[in-house]
Amino acid sequence: MSILGEMIIGARCVRGAGGEAFGFNPATRANLEPAFGQATSEDVEQACALAQQAFDPYRALPLEQRARFLETVAEQILAIGAPLIERAMLETGLPQARLEGERMRTVNQLRLFAKVVRDGHFTDATIDSALPERAPPRPDLRLRKIGLGPVAVFGASNFPLAFSVAGGDTASALAAGCPVVVKAHGAHPGTSELVGRAVQRAVQECGLPEGVFSMLFGDGRTVGQQLVSHPAIKAVGFTGSRQGGLALVRAAAARNEPIPVYAEMSSVNPVFLLAGALQSGGAGLANGFVDSLTLGVGQFCTNPGLVFALAGSELDAFVSAAGTALGGKGAGTMLTAGIHEAYNSGVAKLGAVEGLQLVARGGEQGNGCAAQAALYVCDAAAYLGNPALEDEVFGPAAVVVRFTDAQQLLQAAEQLHGQLTVTVHATEQDHATAAALLPILERKAGRVLFNGFPTGVEVSHAMVHGGPFPATSDSRSTSVGASAIDRFLRPVCYQNIPGSLLPQELQDANPLGLTRLQDGELKAKGAA
Amino acid sequence: MSILGEMIIGARCVRGAGGEAFGFNPATRANLEPAFGQATSEDVEQACALAQQAFDPYRALPLEQRARFLETVAEQILAIGAPLIERAMLETGLPQARLEGERMRTVNQLRLFAKVVRDGHFTDATIDSALPERAPPRPDLRLRKIGLGPVAVFGASNFPLAFSVAGGDTASALAAGCPVVVKAHGAHPGTSELVGRAVQRAVQECGLPEGVFSMLFGDGRTVGQQLVSHPAIKAVGFTGSRQGGLALVRAAAARNEPIPVYAEMSSVNPVFLLAGALQSGGAGLANGFVDSLTLGVGQFCTNPGLVFALAGSELDAFVSAAGTALGGKGAGTMLTAGIHEAYNSGVAKLGAVEGLQLVARGGEQGNGCAAQAALYVCDAAAYLGNPALEDEVFGPAAVVVRFTDAQQLLQAAEQLHGQLTVTVHATEQDHATAAALLPILERKAGRVLFNGFPTGVEVSHAMVHGGPFPATSDSRSTSVGASAIDRFLRPVCYQNIPGSLLPQELQDANPLGLTRLQDGELKAKGAA
Repeated sequence: MSILGEMIIGARCVRGAGGEAFGFNPATRANLEPAFGQATSEDVEQACALAQQAFDPYRALPLEQRARFLETVAEQILAIGAPLIERAMLETGLPQARLEGERMRTVNQLRLFAKVVRDGHFTDATIDSALPERAPPRPDLRLRKIGLGPVAVFGASNFPLAFSVAGGDTASALAAGCPVVVKAHGAHPGTSELVGRAVQRAVQECGLPEGVFSMLFGDGRTVGQQLVSHPAIKAVGFTGSRQGGLALVRAAAARNEPIPVYAEMSSVNPVFLLAGALQSGGAGLANGFVDSLTLGVGQFCTNPGLVFALAGSELDAFVSAAGTALGGKGAGTMLTAGIHEAYNSGVAKLGAVEGLQLVARGGEQGNGCAAQAALYVCDAAAYLGNPALEDEVFGPAAVVVRFTDAQQLLQAAEQLHGQLTVTVHATEQDHATAAALLPILERKAGRVLFNGFPTGVEVSHAMVHGGPFPATSDSRSTSVGASAIDRFLRPVCYQNIPGSLLPQELQDANPLGLTRLQDGELKAKGAA
Repeated sequence: MSILGEMIIGARCVRGAGGEAFGFNPATRANLEPAFGQATSEDVEQACALAQQAFDPYRALPLEQRARFLETVAEQILAIGAPLIERAMLETGLPQARLEGERMRTVNQLRLFAKVVRDGHFTDATIDSALPERAPPRPDLRLRKIGLGPVAVFGASNFPLAFSVAGGDTASALAAGCPVVVKAHGAHPGTSELVGRAVQRAVQECGLPEGVFSMLFGDGRTVGQQLVSHPAIKAVGFTGSRQGGLALVRAAAARNEPIPVYAEMSSVNPVFLLAGALQSGGAGLANGFVDSLTLGVGQFCTNPGLVFALAGSELDAFVSAAGTALGGKGAGTMLTAGIHEAYNSGVAKLGAVEGLQLVARGGEQGNGCAAQAALYVCDAAAYLGNPALEDEVFGPAAVVVRFTDAQQLLQAAEQLHGQLTVTVHATEQDHATAAALLPILERKAGRVLFNGFPTGVEVSHAMVHGGPFPATSDSRSTSVGASAIDRFLRPVCYQNIPGSLLPQELQDANPLGLTRLQDGELKAKGAA
């Protein structure tokens, strides 16, 4: 399976004529062959025009065919085999086991959305029967959700498979019946090309209109902006930095027809260690925290960068044990030179904050883009006086904040920005404090978790990978889990439409066997 | 029940010190007593601060109590009795029967949302059981939706009850568990004060925190902008002009923390008359159209302002019959002097469009703000050459466009902007054309209806009063019907939360008897 430096524009593989860029090996700081041709504005135009043409025929397919397509994408990704993992290792510095796990997650994500499509629950099929005798008569009203239209997806650097070309954004948009144009992340172009071709093969194998999927290379400021501004694009999915996300939000708002942007941006994922948990947690708690902090060199959106607890000997013991554990962690290679540089400058800034004490650094940096973990501690006054301490330092760095009483802890919770996750460690004796914290935390985060760590985002029906700004640009949805499909749907009401013209979801005979809301009551599957 | 010119700020009735404004009788062009004190920035601040304080205790109430509150608001509105209708008639020029009907609709809307709250389906309660044996183990994951936070609601001029102080935006926000701060519409301040006091009494009667509801008077550019910019406000509901809606969208986007705005703005609601329907429709079709066009002096968001059909003798007969019907309609008083003036200038602009022929005008304008209906006809070339013909002229004016073939009709459908509604008149023989139109129309509108007219928006589960831009600023939702609640909700995932700390919706025992998605399968009510 060779990598040619080509983009996917519908059924064609195209070498972009808008300049060249290379993959980069962060372990050796060497460029990787081949050169990747970058998209011209004509390429963007063609991908978007094909997506627009594909929208009606693609969404008109029976749900079963749409589900099969998602499963075929999964099969085609698996069929690439070892070359995918090998290339991804070179481009990201991530280890084989992690990438193999991520591939399985990517495949399972596609399969989950195939199930979601088959279930048909996402269409919110709703029927209000006509009431001809009422004054005034009520017409026959039926609602289903349909896709918004072609979606632009921006791959993330930190999950070269699961949040990239055929990741959660793409899977959920395709599940919603929306064609996808991906702007591949420049940090893993070879991985992107391999996956892009796999999706292209699935489109072909399933006999779908070619415009269902395209993938472009190019810069966010040029190709990315052009893509988001294109009239055919009706929604955007993005995972990355706050700066990058906000630029797309602005571009989308500046269009003649504004479109929704789901940008998952930044989160520091606070961890509250309540008194009982600190007392009983011991070294296991500290080790669990440091493992989560340093997992994947701290390059997770849900990486725990802030720890809140009451000052005291138990907290001192936790900090000391965490420092020891962190000191034993070797330096890990970060994804890109830019991320590595930003991490080092973020840590340098932390080091300069008044009142912040260094607890420990991880193993020394070697060559390449290896990052040294860092743990700091400070008192509440230093934290509350430095709003920048809540900004994400992307990588294995964290700050422990010592509070003097529970009231101060609640106040700090109230002052938090929006987060992807907030974690509470609590035993039975902490439940009163936890109960007071919960209403605050659920206002602040998309996911609240107890007695665990936030890294590791399960792909299931109840998962929320979202949260209030600046965690995301739209807290009403999620980019992981079954309900990620909701981002790309809108409701349509059909009034007095003749039965033969109704979509299958809404026909009296209920040929898809959907569970539907009928005159205000959910009617189970199969009950026509 | 006297009207004092006061605003509602939580439990207090406050006379605003930010200047004065009067209600206006559009039939006589006279101001109406008393003067209404306008909000100062301190008033906005206080209303928002109270709303923020009320959010956690209000949303923590059992759903049954939230539902009872909505029903109490309905009771309190009915308890105002005749004075409400009398004042609304004076302020809007709308007739008694229409306002009594609108009051019933407002009350039914509140009751529908009480039912929605009791059902609990809106919480999307979802449980993924822990899989401790799996590698890696799956945690216990539970999802429910909670309110976004305090919502700013901007009342509309054209429905002084149903889209105003206690209208659909307020009802759906309160149902979602969100406190509401209303910016009352300046065109019906007395009606607003009466309804605002009714909501205030309901808050009191139900023992809710006072900040659940406030209502301010003031200008959109000052008080409105300040309200939308306030950090406590987490979402906006608006019904009105495109200009007004877009100003709020911009204000919301310019905040440090951007917030969602659901603005329902403008729609020309095209009507397609297919060949069979034209042949068999006769004068009934023309009369039905003119009745819908002139209903409420054309002041409906769903007023049909554009008719598309194939040229021919049948269409000529329709146009002629519609002209006759329209000529027999007397002039009706419009809501405000500004709307009346905008209507007259809109009609004057239509009259100046090259290729547009006047078919008929309605009865002559008398004194006051009475509007004369207007019907025009043109060929496809004139229509396609004047994009402004798709802009809404708010009032009883419409343009019939004659197309030469079905292909041109489809092309015109494809070129439409987003609409609240699109209507198709078709008989059996038109079904092939209708089937080709439908995939286009459902991309363009929130509601597609057959063989009827779009005015008259049913309040039920399957209704969609929404649609792609510029009909609304967010096509993913609706401002009428049960799913209007979705605009003000966000999902939260609870991971491994101890049972005693879980919200009722997600407890194992399912004390609310909700239908929940359990491990991917909908489990019917009561099945714990």
